[in-house]
Amino acid sequence: MTWPASTPPPPYYAVIFTSLRSGIDDGYAQTAQRMEELAAGRQGFLGIESVRDGTQGITLSYWTDLEAIRAWRADLEHAEAQRLGRARWYARYSVRIARVERAYTYG
Amino acid sequence: MTWPASTPPPPYYAVIFTSLRSGIDDGYAQTAQRMEELAAGRQGFLGIESVRDGTQGITLSYWTDLEAIRAWRADLEHAEAQRLGRARWYARYSVRIARVERAYTYG
Repeated sequence: MTWPASTPPPPYYAVIFTSLRSGIDDGYAQTAQRMEELAAGRQGFLGIESVRDGTQGITLSYWTDLEAIRAWRADLEHAEAQRLGRARWYARYSVRIARVERAYTYG
Repeated sequence: MTWPASTPPPPYYAVIFTSLRSGIDDGYAQTAQRMEELAAGRQGFLGIESVRDGTQGITLSYWTDLEAIRAWRADLEHAEAQRLGRARWYARYSVRIARVERAYTYG
């Protein structure tokens, strides 16, 4: 994985997932890795950036369009992971869907 | 600081700053804290979320509109911090300006 993620020129979409972990680890790391792999294989996926420090985490995924995001959100295995996330792994989270309008890089 | 940041209903804007640190710390923590304080005091600022794990970091700041982002980017003390960032603290970074169109929270 390159860091920062290499993405095409805008416009494209970002899913901003900001989370507070519950402290329960049961199956978390395995599922998180599986979801990254599944997302990366989907049509419209452009890249992912994820950082965690203790209980606070941010995951950014980039997509060509809203339809790709909708389809990924509705994926059955992903939907089950979202359900487990609420039941076990996350105390709080927010999801923001945003249209990237400008981007530049340094270095 | 609440986590995730509490933000009003969309639309609003996000600045997505994904960075790779250089390994040089000279003045970094002090300047990063000062920039968060300065940003939080500006008109149009809505919230901030920042996570770092080793050299990889993501900082999200939220703003009412593009004009607030432009004004913050041009702030003289911020411009000097950006210059030092390129000279000292960051090996690479990307900045993405995005319009948040939908948002929801859990917990």
